[in-house]
Amino acid sequence: MKIVQCVPNFSEGCDTAKIEAVIAPLKNQPGFKLIGCEPDKNYNRTVVTLLGDGDAMIEPLLEFVGKAVQLINLNYHKGEHPRMGAVDVIPFVPIKNITMKECVALAQKLGEKIAKQYHFPVFLYEEAARSLDRQNLADIRKGEFEGMKEKIKSKEWYPDYGTPEIHPTAGAVAVGAREPLIAYNINLGTDDIDIAKAIAKAIRHSNGGFRYIKAGAAKIADRNIVQVTMNITDYRKTAIYRVFEAVKTEAKRYGINVLGSEVVGMMPLAAALDSLAYYLGLTDFDGKKILESYLLEK
Amino acid sequence: MKIVQCVPNFSEGCDTAKIEAVIAPLKNQPGFKLIGCEPDKNYNRTVVTLLGDGDAMIEPLLEFVGKAVQLINLNYHKGEHPRMGAVDVIPFVPIKNITMKECVALAQKLGEKIAKQYHFPVFLYEEAARSLDRQNLADIRKGEFEGMKEKIKSKEWYPDYGTPEIHPTAGAVAVGAREPLIAYNINLGTDDIDIAKAIAKAIRHSNGGFRYIKAGAAKIADRNIVQVTMNITDYRKTAIYRVFEAVKTEAKRYGINVLGSEVVGMMPLAAALDSLAYYLGLTDFDGKKILESYLLEK
Repeated sequence: MKIVQCVPNFSEGCDTAKIEAVIAPLKNQPGFKLIGCEPDKNYNRTVVTLLGDGDAMIEPLLEFVGKAVQLINLNYHKGEHPRMGAVDVIPFVPIKNITMKECVALAQKLGEKIAKQYHFPVFLYEEAARSLDRQNLADIRKGEFEGMKEKIKSKEWYPDYGTPEIHPTAGAVAVGAREPLIAYNINLGTDDIDIAKAIAKAIRHSNGGFRYIKAGAAKIADRNIVQVTMNITDYRKTAIYRVFEAVKTEAKRYGINVLGSEVVGMMPLAAALDSLAYYLGLTDFDGKKILESYLLEK
Repeated sequence: MKIVQCVPNFSEGCDTAKIEAVIAPLKNQPGFKLIGCEPDKNYNRTVVTLLGDGDAMIEPLLEFVGKAVQLINLNYHKGEHPRMGAVDVIPFVPIKNITMKECVALAQKLGEKIAKQYHFPVFLYEEAARSLDRQNLADIRKGEFEGMKEKIKSKEWYPDYGTPEIHPTAGAVAVGAREPLIAYNINLGTDDIDIAKAIAKAIRHSNGGFRYIKAGAAKIADRNIVQVTMNITDYRKTAIYRVFEAVKTEAKRYGINVLGSEVVGMMPLAAALDSLAYYLGLTDFDGKKILESYLLEK
C-alpha cells in the first residue's frame, strides 16, 4: 500500500470553532487518517497532518481549502509565522511504497483543482517546482500576503495554476512535494527577539550554520519568551541533539537559558532514537531495539 | 491477535557455532518471530527475544531447550552473570490482547514439558510463582548452578516440575511470566569492580535506591572496564534517564566517567521517548509524535 504524508498549514490558530470547521472535511474519510491538528496561537496558524492514500486525500483537501478560503480573511490576519494564504502551504511527502514523482503528480492534481474551483492562485514548490527559483518556499512567500498583491503580477511570479491575481481575502497557496522534514522549535528564557534572531543566524545554513537547518525567530507572546523556529530538512545528516546543544552553547553568550523545545507535526522514529542514543551514550541503538517496530511489521 | 514476548536466556555467549545450533529451532517458525539474539562474551550468556503467538512458541522452545541441554555443560561454564541452568530463564511477557494469566498458563505448559522431556527441573517464578518466596528470580537462583545441587534437595526448594535433582550438566531452569522490563547496563570508565558494586548499591531498591531498579556489578574483561547491570522493572515509574543521571552523579564521587550505556533485548517506545523528552525539554511528547506509530495502526 502506498502511503503519503500531507501536511497542510492554514492561517488560523486561535478561533477553535473556525479551526474545527476548516478541518471537518478531513475527518473520518476513507483511505487516509487525520493524525495531527496543532493550532498555534502565537503563529495564528494550524499544522494538519494526514497519512494514507494520496489519491483519497485530493477531494477532501479540496473541500478543506474551500472552507479555509470561505472562513479566513488574510486582510485581518496577524501572526508570528510568515504566510501568504488562507491555506498557506500543502506539501505531499512520500512515506512508503511511493515515489517523489508520484507526490509531485498529487501536488499538480490538487493545485490545478484549487485554482480552478476557488480562483485561489497556486505556486508549485520544492520537488514540484517548475523552475529553480520556485524550489524554496521562502522565496515564493517573500513579501507575504500583503506583498503578493503586486508580486504575482510580475512575469517572474506568474502562478503555476490560476491567474496572476491573489484571491482578495485568501491570497495565494504553495502546493508541493518534498522529503520528510522535522519542524522543531527551541524556546529561550528571554523576551529579547534579537537574541533569537542572532541564534537562528548562527545555526542556519544560509548564514554559515548547519547544512540542513532553516531557522528564524518568533515571539511567544503568551509566555513572554522568544523561540528559534526551525526546519530540519535532513535529520539523518543534521541531528536534532546537535542543533539543540548548539543553541544551548549560543545561548550562553547572552547569559540566557534554553527552556525546552517542541516538535510540530510528526517526526520519524529514527530521528528520535538517534538523539536518545547520543544522550545515553548508547551504541548500536536503532529501531531494532524498539518493541513496537516488530509489531509494525505484522 | 494475541502477542506475547518471550525472552529466554541461555548460558553460552562465546561459541558462535553452539549459539547458532541452540537457536536454530526458533528460526523461521510460523506464528512468531525471532526478533533478537544477543550473545555477551563477558556474561557468557545469550538473550533471545521472540514475539508473536505464545502457543506457537511452545514446541520450538522445547526443541531449543533440548539443544541447550545437549550442548551446554554448566560444570565448565564461567561468566559474569549469575546462572543456574543451560537455559537459565524463560519469561513470557504479555504485549497485546493477552492477559498475564494467559502468560502464566504458557509458562506452566512449557515448564511441565521441559521437566518431563529432559529431566531438567523447572521453577515457576514471578507472576507464575506458586509461593511468595519464588516470585523473585534472584532468590531461586541464589547459589547458582554449583549451589543448586544441594539446595534443590531441601523441601523449601522442591522444583515446581520434575524431581529434586538438578540435571547433571544443565542444572535447573526458571520459567515464568512477568511485566515488561528493560535490561539496561551502564559502563564505567574504570576497571574497579568495587566502584560498580557501590554504585549498584546506591541506586537499587533493595538498598534504598529507586523503587523499580534491580542492580549488580559486572566486569567487562575485553574492554577492561566494569558496568552497573540493571533491570528496570517498571520504566513508567523509574525512568531510564533518571537512572543514567543518578549513576553519573555517583560516578563523580569516585572521579570516574560514565562511558555510555546499552539496552539488552527490546525496550518499549514509550520508555525511549520519555527519556528523549527529558533531554530535549520536550513537553507533550509521546508516541503520537512518531510517524511510525500511525503506520502501526494500519
